[in-house]
Formats: sequence, structure tokens, C-alpha cells
Amino acid sequence: MTSTVAREKIREMLAEDIGFADVTSEALVPARAIARAEIVARQSGILAGVEEAAFAFDELGVHVKAARAEGKTIKEEDVLMRLEGQARSIFAAERVALNLLMRMSGVATATRKMLELARKINPKVVVAATRKTLPRFSYFDKRAVRVGGGDPHRFGLDDCVLIKSDHVKLAGSVKEAIKRARRASFTKKIEIEVSSAKDALEAARSGVDIVMLDNVPPAGVKRAIELLKRAGLRERILIEASGGIEPANVARYVATGVDIVSSSYMTFRAPVMDMNLEILSKGFKPAAGERKRKSR
Amino acid sequence: MTSTVAREKIREMLAEDIGFADVTSEALVPARAIARAEIVARQSGILAGVEEAAFAFDELGVHVKAARAEGKTIKEEDVLMRLEGQARSIFAAERVALNLLMRMSGVATATRKMLELARKINPKVVVAATRKTLPRFSYFDKRAVRVGGGDPHRFGLDDCVLIKSDHVKLAGSVKEAIKRARRASFTKKIEIEVSSAKDALEAARSGVDIVMLDNVPPAGVKRAIELLKRAGLRERILIEASGGIEPANVARYVATGVDIVSSSYMTFRAPVMDMNLEILSKGFKPAAGERKRKSR
Amino acid sequence: MTSTVAREKIREMLAEDIGFADVTSEALVPARAIARAEIVARQSGILAGVEEAAFAFDELGVHVKAARAEGKTIKEEDVLMRLEGQARSIFAAERVALNLLMRMSGVATATRKMLELARKINPKVVVAATRKTLPRFSYFDKRAVRVGGGDPHRFGLDDCVLIKSDHVKLAGSVKEAIKRARRASFTKKIEIEVSSAKDALEAARSGVDIVMLDNVPPAGVKRAIELLKRAGLRERILIEASGGIEPANVARYVATGVDIVSSSYMTFRAPVMDMNLEILSKGFKPAAGERKRKSR
Amino acid sequence: MTSTVAREKIREMLAEDIGFADVTSEALVPARAIARAEIVARQSGILAGVEEAAFAFDELGVHVKAARAEGKTIKEEDVLMRLEGQARSIFAAERVALNLLMRMSGVATATRKMLELARKINPKVVVAATRKTLPRFSYFDKRAVRVGGGDPHRFGLDDCVLIKSDHVKLAGSVKEAIKRARRASFTKKIEIEVSSAKDALEAARSGVDIVMLDNVPPAGVKRAIELLKRAGLRERILIEASGGIEPANVARYVATGVDIVSSSYMTFRAPVMDMNLEILSKGFKPAAGERKRKSR
Amino acid sequence: MTSTVAREKIREMLAEDIGFADVTSEALVPARAIARAEIVARQSGILAGVEEAAFAFDELGVHVKAARAEGKTIKEEDVLMRLEGQARSIFAAERVALNLLMRMSGVATATRKMLELARKINPKVVVAATRKTLPRFSYFDKRAVRVGGGDPHRFGLDDCVLIKSDHVKLAGSVKEAIKRARRASFTKKIEIEVSSAKDALEAARSGVDIVMLDNVPPAGVKRAIELLKRAGLRERILIEASGGIEPANVARYVATGVDIVSSSYMTFRAPVMDMNLEILSKGFKPAAGERKRKSR
Amino acid sequence: MTSTVAREKIREMLAEDIGFADVTSEALVPARAIARAEIVARQSGILAGVEEAAFAFDELGVHVKAARAEGKTIKEEDVLMRLEGQARSIFAAERVALNLLMRMSGVATATRKMLELARKINPKVVVAATRKTLPRFSYFDKRAVRVGGGDPHRFGLDDCVLIKSDHVKLAGSVKEAIKRARRASFTKKIEIEVSSAKDALEAARSGVDIVMLDNVPPAGVKRAIELLKRAGLRERILIEASGGIEPANVARYVATGVDIVSSSYMTFRAPVMDMNLEILSKGFKPAAGERKRKSR
Repeated sequence: MTSTVAREKIREMLAEDIGFADVTSEALVPARAIARAEIVARQSGILAGVEEAAFAFDELGVHVKAARAEGKTIKEEDVLMRLEGQARSIFAAERVALNLLMRMSGVATATRKMLELARKINPKVVVAATRKTLPRFSYFDKRAVRVGGGDPHRFGLDDCVLIKSDHVKLAGSVKEAIKRARRASFTKKIEIEVSSAKDALEAARSGVDIVMLDNVPPAGVKRAIELLKRAGLRERILIEASGGIEPANVARYVATGVDIVSSSYMTFRAPVMDMNLEILSKGFKPAAGERKRKSR
Repeated sequence: MTSTVAREKIREMLAEDIGFADVTSEALVPARAIARAEIVARQSGILAGVEEAAFAFDELGVHVKAARAEGKTIKEEDVLMRLEGQARSIFAAERVALNLLMRMSGVATATRKMLELARKINPKVVVAATRKTLPRFSYFDKRAVRVGGGDPHRFGLDDCVLIKSDHVKLAGSVKEAIKRARRASFTKKIEIEVSSAKDALEAARSGVDIVMLDNVPPAGVKRAIELLKRAGLRERILIEASGGIEPANVARYVATGVDIVSSSYMTFRAPVMDMNLEILSKGFKPAAGERKRKSR
Repeated sequence: MTSTVAREKIREMLAEDIGFADVTSEALVPARAIARAEIVARQSGILAGVEEAAFAFDELGVHVKAARAEGKTIKEEDVLMRLEGQARSIFAAERVALNLLMRMSGVATATRKMLELARKINPKVVVAATRKTLPRFSYFDKRAVRVGGGDPHRFGLDDCVLIKSDHVKLAGSVKEAIKRARRASFTKKIEIEVSSAKDALEAARSGVDIVMLDNVPPAGVKRAIELLKRAGLRERILIEASGGIEPANVARYVATGVDIVSSSYMTFRAPVMDMNLEILSKGFKPAAGERKRKSR
Repeated sequence: MTSTVAREKIREMLAEDIGFADVTSEALVPARAIARAEIVARQSGILAGVEEAAFAFDELGVHVKAARAEGKTIKEEDVLMRLEGQARSIFAAERVALNLLMRMSGVATATRKMLELARKINPKVVVAATRKTLPRFSYFDKRAVRVGGGDPHRFGLDDCVLIKSDHVKLAGSVKEAIKRARRASFTKKIEIEVSSAKDALEAARSGVDIVMLDNVPPAGVKRAIELLKRAGLRERILIEASGGIEPANVARYVATGVDIVSSSYMTFRAPVMDMNLEILSKGFKPAAGERKRKSR
Repeated sequence: MTSTVAREKIREMLAEDIGFADVTSEALVPARAIARAEIVARQSGILAGVEEAAFAFDELGVHVKAARAEGKTIKEEDVLMRLEGQARSIFAAERVALNLLMRMSGVATATRKMLELARKINPKVVVAATRKTLPRFSYFDKRAVRVGGGDPHRFGLDDCVLIKSDHVKLAGSVKEAIKRARRASFTKKIEIEVSSAKDALEAARSGVDIVMLDNVPPAGVKRAIELLKRAGLRERILIEASGGIEPANVARYVATGVDIVSSSYMTFRAPVMDMNLEILSKGFKPAAGERKRKSR
Repeated sequence: MTSTVAREKIREMLAEDIGFADVTSEALVPARAIARAEIVARQSGILAGVEEAAFAFDELGVHVKAARAEGKTIKEEDVLMRLEGQARSIFAAERVALNLLMRMSGVATATRKMLELARKINPKVVVAATRKTLPRFSYFDKRAVRVGGGDPHRFGLDDCVLIKSDHVKLAGSVKEAIKRARRASFTKKIEIEVSSAKDALEAARSGVDIVMLDNVPPAGVKRAIELLKRAGLRERILIEASGGIEPANVARYVATGVDIVSSSYMTFRAPVMDMNLEILSKGFKPAAGERKRKSR
């Protein structure tokens, strides 16, 4: 079931796309014509966005008769959803539903790909998103990452403390920054972005929860981890590598021994997954009332 | 100046990203600390989204001291915007502003690339977007296409009649479909999606404004245009090719003699453009009141 | 079925009218009292707004048992809708539903009247609205025009280019203005407002789609059309007459040979159509639970 | 100063009218071109809506240099507002501003007309609106009535108890209905709609605040008032006549001795007042930056 | 049935509380697990907020199988609502539903307490709220007061004229202030806040509807009432005492002979009523589809 | 500076309270009358809500000339804010501003009180809120807790995993529940609600971050902590006591050695802090334009 939040957003998507009216269908499609349709994959990948697409159709009164499960691999030509309802309503919701499915499945597919490459090296490693999501679309991007098996990371600025290098500069030192970060709330983890093994060590000593090695090449990440191990601090913290990680290099980052690799690849650089909606050739039939009128 | 519509959307972006509070900055950054910052390009491309990013900063009281012009080529390391204001506000708006700039510049860059490839072949050809934009982000995607030099195509279902093959099936024939489409409004153009030269001809004869050859390979497009020329109908209509057009094949489509090539490449498959925000090393200074308090 | 857009607007209408509570019914009507009611015409005319009124009742849980078709002529005393539901809910939705029906039927009736007067002269002429609609009510005004048989004209500033005389002044000439207008989008028609036959000719030569003769008396319109015919340009364009057209003079404008007459008469000067809601004398009955309580 | 409520509504009006973009001005008007403009009356009447129109321009950055006072008589050709700002912004706000001014001035003018006719007979009589206002536009309709000198009557269902005949039926008697109505709140007046002198008398005896004689002809109203006088109850209550009152018969209703005449004439049947916006012939000038670019 | 207004507000409450997702339940509760639950009172008092809580559950698809009536006394351990639905949805709505029930029942309980203390002295006295309600929660606070048997007083600034001492200062005198107040609308009562018997007298002579003795001790209130009686004005007006009235002193104020005592005690100082939601021990069961999957 | 989120909420508060118009001030206060006013404390306590109140006045154009700092102790009669602006605007914002200040200061005062009592026993203990805040007011309640020196705890369901006893039942064991909770996100802490020392031990062994002893009396909390110490697990986790903690017993809970005491006392049971707004006796003056008109 879609959440209250998602429903409001999807209603707004439909309102924005339909505007005053679907002028084409109003002119060409009788109000009571009923159609059956299918959404068909044009590429293989991981399916996501089914809940959202189903709500978009439901909102306009179209019945979703069957839908494939989210998070599963689909192949080209697979039928993803079967629909029945007023032809006008199917046309009106089509683009919004497809755009949601295509984008979200694209994100889920990229997440799964990263995850599979990463877990070949370390079956317990976490692949995480970043806050580089599309503005006003973050809810859907983050959900697609989760459907693909990834970790959503922070949803926004209010659910985890993330100390960036500028925050450290302001505080004067890593230690002081972490000390001040505790003011936020005991319910929130504290993560710090560092670029040197030395800062990673200082952060671990200061009781941080997560150390993010940002834009540090695999060799540097490895050195930092060794240093932490030698200091007996490795187990106290989670280590995240970030910055330019993508399918081509994710294995090398995982091999350093990090707990998490995070990347904006899935939400900012991955392509959408191609799909389309097909009206079944025998799908159209005039509605009851329509037929009667025609027979007169 | 950003539009009323855009402003409401950007306010919503900030509200969604900030949520209850930027817990990191509240804990680490004194309320009155002032900072200066720059947004710097990490890749070359076409700049877009400056109006939107500027509004995001402005909404939180950050002064935009200078910004590069939209639609121009920028190079790696170029400073795109200079900012000054409360450090907390710069951090709070940073991600929304960057996400807007990165996505919109990515779309504008892809549009310019397609346009340049296309105009080498025909300097008058139009490169257009489609309705495959991101839901609730269409306003920004369409604007980025325009900044890049492209044609936005329809904004939604209410501003141009677009007869798809399913509409033709319902109406019984291309001719009948076009006749019915006239009911929409005399102010709206009528475009039809066809996949054969024969249908293109019938459409042109029936007085359509635009013929879209959808998923027809370049050779087929060429044949259709020749047929139309021989029938003396070429000048009466605009011809658009669509379906799988991307940088690798756009020149071949343009070479067929179409007026427009449309593609979802720019909004659905193009990568974002990389940028980041840097706090200037001498940027932080306590605000007046802050200093006084400290001296006590 | 009402659109997503309309539903949000109607919910807002109810919220605005009901406010904190319908204090009268809360004090006087038992919560579970059930009523049957009818909406009855007090004037003849063309019915519109039924979808909207039905949604207003439906939103408050009132069952719409029967409703007359939109776009048909109704006579005084005709029953337009039959309702059954909680008496409180019928009272709470009554005014919003009636105001929608009365205004929209008024607009539809005026449109039909103009249309009938116009089509006596030319059975193919189009009667169009303008953008002189009520702010925040345009969706409903435009829909009422369509129900009445009219053309909605532009919905807003984003779905057709309309070059006004001030735009021409800025561009320097009609020709240059039309050339620049092509930048908007190939999907949008270009209309120009002119006040002389000479400008109409220049516009037609420059490839405009629609020429609007604004505030030009019938004789002037006729001369312009003759000039265009002589120049062999009449068939290339649509000609619209606008400015002060109303039932008293619409025939004279149509007689000039224009394709379209547009007018704000329907949305800005036509009276509403009178109707009222009547609770059926045997309509009230205590609900099941209510009765039980009373018998104790 | 416009209220918080009005501002949100006006922003929504602009957003709805402008949509994705004013495609005409974007293509034809340079972004930095500055214009001066005037709004000019095309009819005489009572001016209203100036605050709202001014806010619409202000929201888009147009400076309102001067404006005539609301509630005063204006004559044809009077300049109502003087504007200066970006030409694009003037065009973008024009229609919303004019539609507000024209509708609201139309309502104010009709109100003043009714008021003048009424006060010739009784200088203390009140002319009131009804709840027959335009949905989602009631705020503006009610304000226009007040500007014209009328009484707004109830804003919605929550600010005065109004017992209609159906409520009386449900309660069993006028007396019982009024008794129950006291449950609403001691802060709210109780008004009752009656159609006979007998019911008026019973209502007055039961302590109602206002008696509305609904759809009772002047002679009947007069008889009811006499009956009340004889019973010594006239001074205890306010008497309102309602139903079909318009300029042609308002004097006759006032002559009966009622305290208030209420009518939907002003909001549902009165015509708008004609005005238009004129760009001053010397108004256009390129902005500073624009000029420099041109001189190159 | 909850009102349109309330529904929008409750949807917003859910959206704010759930945010991106209920991360706990998503990780721990299978999507299809079904649960049965009860809301149980932990204190005795007057129940309110059932409609609102029921809507919160309904919005997330949880079936409300039974609920106790609002406005009745409940005892510790009473089961207030019985629920059945997806366990995830019950958890997601739990806090919003309980917070509504607890706050609204707290307000209703305090109202009833004040009412009972007051009516022991005068069975006809009215206990009223003030505008000291929680911002954005006033709708619910006012409804809870009514459920408890109290009078909501004004909902906002637009439904009754309330002349405060600063308004009197501005007008120059009580008499002049009341005269000007008549401009508001004949449908609105006029109440005045005074602090002396002399002003109360002047107000009654000037035709005010309600006199509020604000922050006047019981003895002073009594003197004012006697003065009004002697002047033969007592019956013409309603008298309200206000300012610091609470359970400890309400009887003394009522004993003065006022018609109304108003207090912010119920909405600003009364405690919430304790309740909690219990998942029934045999409540959890996997949904049909869930079971099948498990058996594989 | 108020956040984007807060501003939208405060605008909505004003819109809800003002409604169609402040009918009293419109009738009694000249539009251009200027006033000066002060907000004065009627009780001592900790000030909060100044940012919000200032924004409410600012939104209506009232200048806030001076305001006391949030989080500081104020005494009865202290002037909290000084205002100058249109008298109508001061009256229109007064109630919303005061309600925000009074409620938020009440919450901050209660928080400080709990904190002082707690820190006498353990200067490092944290006093935290719960999710028992007022629906749609949580943002302000949580901010007031922070102003008072407390920890906001979770903002909503999306920013920390909180395993309740029902979640444990569903998972089968504490260990399994904590294992599953790791799926949520590595960025989120995991807290578990337990009621026995045994479960606390199992939770600590399973790697939970925070153990909440819910509704466990001080003696039981103490035993659990000793058990954890003996098992060498005390330092690995944070321990929170919750359930019925209030000023009367908070010291006893703190004395058990917990890290955090959480309570809904501050948001659900604490009284508001009394304040009022006073128009300065010499405050009113006609505005410039007003005066001129009067002199004529």
C-alpha cells in the first residue's frame, strides 16, 4: 500500500501532467469506452515503482488486475501490470505511471548491479545511496534503492549527523567537532567525512559511529583501515567509502575491507529502464450505456 | 526571476530535505557565523538551473553575489556562483541547489550536444524533448531543455493534440481520427504518430499539422518524406522523427530531411553534470553580535 | 469522472464554505438523520457541472442516485439530480454543489445561445471563450464552455502563442514578431492580434496560423477577409473575430466569413442559471441507530 | 495590505494562468526589457480589487507606482494603476490582475447601485450579499461587496446560525428549531428563514435575532412587519427580505420597512466592469545590461 | 463522519509523523502480516477524538471494528476502539491516532469537569472556550470542547465582533466603539470586553449583545450585574466572565449570576488523558499470500 | 531565522485564525493607524518561540524592534518583544504569536525544570522528549524542548529504529528483532524497548545501540544496570528510562545511573506560560496619509 506521503505526491504528478484536460482523449475517445492494457518490459532489470504506478491508475479508477512483484528480475517482453478500465483514464495515467516505473526500476536495477559486484568480494558489504537524489523525487529514489537491495542512507538533513570537512574547520578539530555533534540527539548516529588515515584515527578515538573516507583512492582506504586495526579501533566503527564509486571500480573499494560503499551512481547516473503500455488489440469495447446509445 | 510556480516547488524541495532541522549544523555551526562560498564546476558543459539555485539560497537569506549566465559553456574549475550569508543557511540550501544545478545542467548539456550533432547536418532542424521527464520535476526538465537550445515539445496533456496509434484504432482510420481531433480546440496543433509512409500520407491529406514517424528507421523516414514530396504535401506539414534517437544516431535521422528529431535521451538517459560547493578558507567569520559575546 | 485537478479544487471549496463546522445543522439535525433530496431547475437552459456537483456530494458521503446528462437542454421544474444520504451532509454540500451547477450551467447556456445564433449563419463557425475567466475558477469555466459546445481557446499562457499588439511593437514588425514566436515550440500554434487588413495580410504572409481581428467592426473584418482572399492567403490561416461580440451582434460577425468568433460574454457577462435543492417532504427518517435510541 | 489568505490564493491564480511559462513573452520579449503601463477604465463604476491586483504585480516584481482608491467612483478613461517593471512580468500578471479588478469592481458597482436605490427610500437600510458567491472566489466576492458599501452576510456555514425551512420541518416547529439553535454558540446570532407572517411572529416570540422573509412579495413583507409591530416585537428583531431582489424592485422591498435587503444580484448576476492594460508607447526600454549587449 | 477540513489535516499529521517511511516496521514487520489491536483507557474521563482517530486508521486501510461513543464517560481499562488490519499500518497510524484521542479527550474531560462544577450552581450557565487554542490544532480543540459540552466561543477573527479595551481606546468611548462595530455585519454579534461596572452599563445602553467582564473578581462581577439590573438592562444582554477561571474558582464566578464563564483552562492547562494501543496476543497472523510463500 | 517548514506552518496558522477578515479591527481600526506594542511575561520561565512569533508579525508587516533571547530565564513583567506597525496587523497576528510563545515557552520551561532536577544528581544525564507531541505541532514542540536544553528524541518514524515489545513478539526474540532491525539503514541507531533486566542483557549482547527500560520502577532499572555492568556490557550501550517520569520522580530515575530519562511531561502535561500583548498608551498615531485626510 502506498503511503499517505506518496499518494499526495502522485496526485500532484497527475494534476501537473493532465492539467486542464487530456485534450486528445477527450476529442477522440468516447467517455465510456473500456480498454484492457498491459505494461511490458523493453529491457531486463529489477522492477520497482509498482505500488506507485498502481496508485496512479487506481486514482483515476483503472483496475489493476495483476502486477509483478517489486525487487525481482524481469526480462524483456515480460508483462509487468495488467489493467482494465475507462480508456480515457488509462491514457491519462499512462505517462505518470510509466515514468515512475521506468525511473524507479532504473534506480533499482543499478542498485542491484552495484550490490552484486560488491557482494562477490564481501557478501556482507552494504551499498548505500547518497543525498544526491532528484529534488521532490527523493522519496521515490530512496524507495527504489531499498527495493534494489541498497541502503537509503540519510533521508534528509534531520535523521543522522554528518560532519563534513567544513564543519571540522569551523570546530577547530575532528575531536571538537565530534564532541559538539553529540548535542544533536542521542538517537542519531554521528558520521564524519575525512580524507586522511590520521583524521579517521582521531575520529574513531573520539567515539564517532561512522567514518566516511571521501574521495580517497582504494589504496588510501586500505591504509586507513590497517591503521585503525592496529590501534584496536576497527571494530568500534563502521567505515564507508564514497566519491566516484561506480560499477567499474566498486569491487576495488569493497576489497579494502570497508563496511559500506556509497554512491550517487544509482540515482544520478544510471539510465531508466525501458517499458511501454500496450492497449490490447481486443481491448476496446464500448461501455454498456455507450452501446445502447449507438444502437439508437 | 523564477516563476511563482517554480518558487513553490523549490520551497517544497527545501522543506523536504531539511525536515525538522539540519541537525548537524545546529549542533556544530554557531547561528550567527557568516561564510562565503563558491559553486565550482567539476566537468565542462552547459550551465542551467542558476535561477532555481539562486532562489533556493535567497529563500534562506543567503546573498548570491555573482552567477554565470545560463546556456553558456562552462569549463571544469569555473566558478559558477559566489555566495555569502549565514553558514547554517548555506549548508541547509547546498544540496537542493546543487541537485537542481547538476540535473538541469546535465539536461542542458545533453540537449546542446544533440543540437550540435544535428545542426551539422541541417542548421534549421529542431531537437525536441518528450513527455518522458521526471514526475513533479517536468517544469525544471523542460526549462533545462530550452536553456540548452532545444524545443520543450508538449508540457502536458493539455497543450497540443497528439494522436497515438491506439487513438487511431479507436477512431477506425487516420482520417477519422484527425477529423475528431479538431474538436479539441482550434488553438491547438494536431500531431499524429504513424509508423508507415502510407499513414503519413493519409495524415497529411487529412490536414494534420505534424506527422511523427515513431520507431521508424532512417531509411523508412526518408521514403515517407519522398512519398510526401511526390504527393506535393511535404510543405504543408512538419515531420518529426522519434524513438531511440541519441547522439550516436541523431545525424542519420536528421539527414533524412525531417524538421524535428525528438528524444528522451536528454531527460531520461543523460548523466548529471558534476559540481560542488566550497566554503572559502577565509570565509568563516563570527557575526558582529557573536564576536561581542565572545569578547565578554 | 471528475479529474484529479477538479477534485482537489472541489475539496477546497467545501473546506472554505464549511469552515470549522456547519453550526446550524450540528445544532438542529441529528447526526444520523437520513434525507432524500432533489435538485430542481428554476429556469431552462443547458446543464453543466453535474460531475462536479456529484463529486461534492460524494466527498461528504451522499449517494447520487440519478443525474441528468450534461450538455442537454433542461426545462424549468426538471429534476436534475436525486440524492440520498445523511441530512447533515446534504446541507453541508448544498451551496457548493448549487453554485457550481448554477454558474457552469449559466456559462454553458450562454455558450449554446451564442452557438445557435452563429450557426444559423455558418454551420461550421466556432464560438470560442477567452482567458477572461474567473481566477481559480478557469478550469470550471472552460469546461462549461466545452459542455455548451464552444471552444475553450487557450487554457493559460503556456499552450498557444498569442502575439498581442504590444509584442509587435517590441519586435518592430508583424513579420519579425512571428519569426521570433517560432522559438516557442513547434507544437504550439501562433496566433496574432491585429487591427488592420494590412497587418492581417502581413501576418498571413509570414506564416502565422491564426489571425485575430481585435475590436474591428464587421465591415472591417469583411474587407480584411476579401484582401486575404485576393492575395490567395485565405485558406492558409484561421480567422478569428474578437472584441465586444455578444448575442446581439454575433450574427453580423459570423456573416463576415470568419472561422471563429471569440467572446468573454459567456464567462464574464452571462447570468447564472437558477436552481434549488429540495428536501423531499417524506425524505427525513431517523437512521437505524437513531430510532433505537429514541425508543428507549 | 492583502491578507495572508488572499496572497496564497493570488499566487495560485498566477500559477494556474502562467503554467509552465508564458511562451509568447519568452519568445518575443527580452528578459530584461523594462516597460511602463497603465490600467485604464473602459466603463464607469466603483473600483475594487486594487489590493489584490497590486499584490499580483508585486509577486512578479512589478512596481505599482500609483493606484486609485478602492470604493470610489471612477469614470471611463480614468487611469486606475500605473506600473513599471520587467515587460515579461507585466504580461504574465496582466490577465490575473485585470480579471480580479474587473470582477471585483463589477460586484462593488452593483452593490453601490443597489445601495443607492435602497437608501433613497431608507437611509439606514442595509444591502447584504448571500452565500451565492463563486466557489473558491468567495473571499474576493465578499470583499468587493464590502468595498461597495454592502454587508457581506455570512462568510460560510460556521459564523451565524441560519435556520432554513427544512431545519424547521426536522425540528417540528419554529419554536423548537430556535431553541435547538441556541446549542450552537452564544457568540452566534440566530437567523430564521420564514415565508409567513405567522412564522415570523412565532420566531420573534421565540427570541430569534433575525427574521428573513424569503420569497415573500413586498405586500406580504409589509403585513408581517405590521403584525410584528402590533405584537410589540418589531424592535426586538432585525428583518431581512430576500429572494429575487434586484435593482428593478429593491425600492419596493425597502419601502416595506425591512432593516435589510439581501440579494445574489451583486455576485451572481451583475456584469464585470471593463478595463484594460496599456503599455505606454514610450514605455519599453532595454534594461541596462541589455543595452550594453546591443551596443556591441 | 470527519469533515473535509479535518481529513486534510489528519493526512498531514500522518505524513509528518511517518515521513519517508516507518523504518522500524519496514525492517521488522512482514508487509502482509495482519494484526488485531485495541485502544485502552489508562485513566477515566470523557472520550473525544474517535472520529479523527478512526479516520487516521481508515486512511491507512485499517478496519475500525468498534468504537465507544464520544462525549461519554469512560473508565480505566475500558476498550475504546477495536482494530484489524495490516500490522504495519496499525503501527504507522498509532501515534497520530493516540495523540488525537489523548489530547481531545483531555480537553473534553476538563470541559465536562468545569461544566459540572458550574452547573451545580446554575444549571443553565454556559462554559465556553477562548481563542487560546493550539495553532493549527484549533479545529480539534474546539470540537473537543463541544464534545465535552462546552461552547466553542469564536472560531477565529471572522465570526463575531469582539471589542477589546485597545479598540475602545482607539474609538474614544465604549459607545463610539459599539457604534462602529455595527459596520462589520448585521449577522455578527457584538461582544465587548470591559473591566468596570460603569463600562458594562454604557455598553448595555449602547446596544451591545454580550458584555465580557475580563479579569474582574467575583465581587466586582456581582456589582456590575446588580447595576445592570437596577438600570433595567440585565435582560438585554448576555454577561460573560473571563480571566483566570479554573475548577478551583468557577463556582464562585457562576454564583455571581453571569450567563457564561469562559476559560482557557480546558485548552491550555488541562492534562491529556492517558491511553494506549495493545496488539492482541493472538492478533498477529500472516496474510494469506504470506503463508503460501512461507510453505514453499 | 525561521525555517522554510516553519514559515509555511505559521502562514497557515494566521490564515486559519484570521479567516475571511478580522471583522472587529476592520470596523474599528483605521487602516493606516500605527501602533506600538509590547509582549509582557505574566509568569517567570524559559522563553521559546520568539523566532516563530517574530515571523508571524513580520508576515503581516509588523516591525519587531527588539526581542529577548530564547532559552533564557525571564521574570514576570519582563518585556519579551517590542513591536511597531499597522494596528490592524498587530491585532491580526496577536493571538497566533502569543499562542506560539505561550505553548513553546511552557514546554521549554518544563524541560528546563526537569533538566535541573536531573542534573543535580548527574550533570551529564540527558532529558529527552518522546513522540507524544501535538499532531501538526511537533516541529514546534520539539524545537521548544531543544530551546529548554532537552534532547528532541526521534522526530518521526523515519529517523531512528525503535523496536517495541510488539515488534519483538513478531520477530520471535530480542536477538532476532535486533538482527532484522539492521536492515533499516546503517545510518540509523537501533533502540529497543524492554521491561526486564534479562531482555536488556540480551539486547546489549545483540549489539543494540540504546536500551529503553519502559515502565520499569527505579529499583528495577538499577538492577538491570548492575547486571549489564557485571556482564561488561554497560559501556557499549546507552540506557534510557521512560514511562511516567515527571518532576516528582525524575531524580530517583536519574540516580539509577541511566544515561537518558525521557518523558512526555514537557509536551503533554506541562502548562503554558502566561503572557500578554499590550498596546502602548501613547502608541496609536494616525499614519501620515491618515492625518492629511483628517486635516481637510
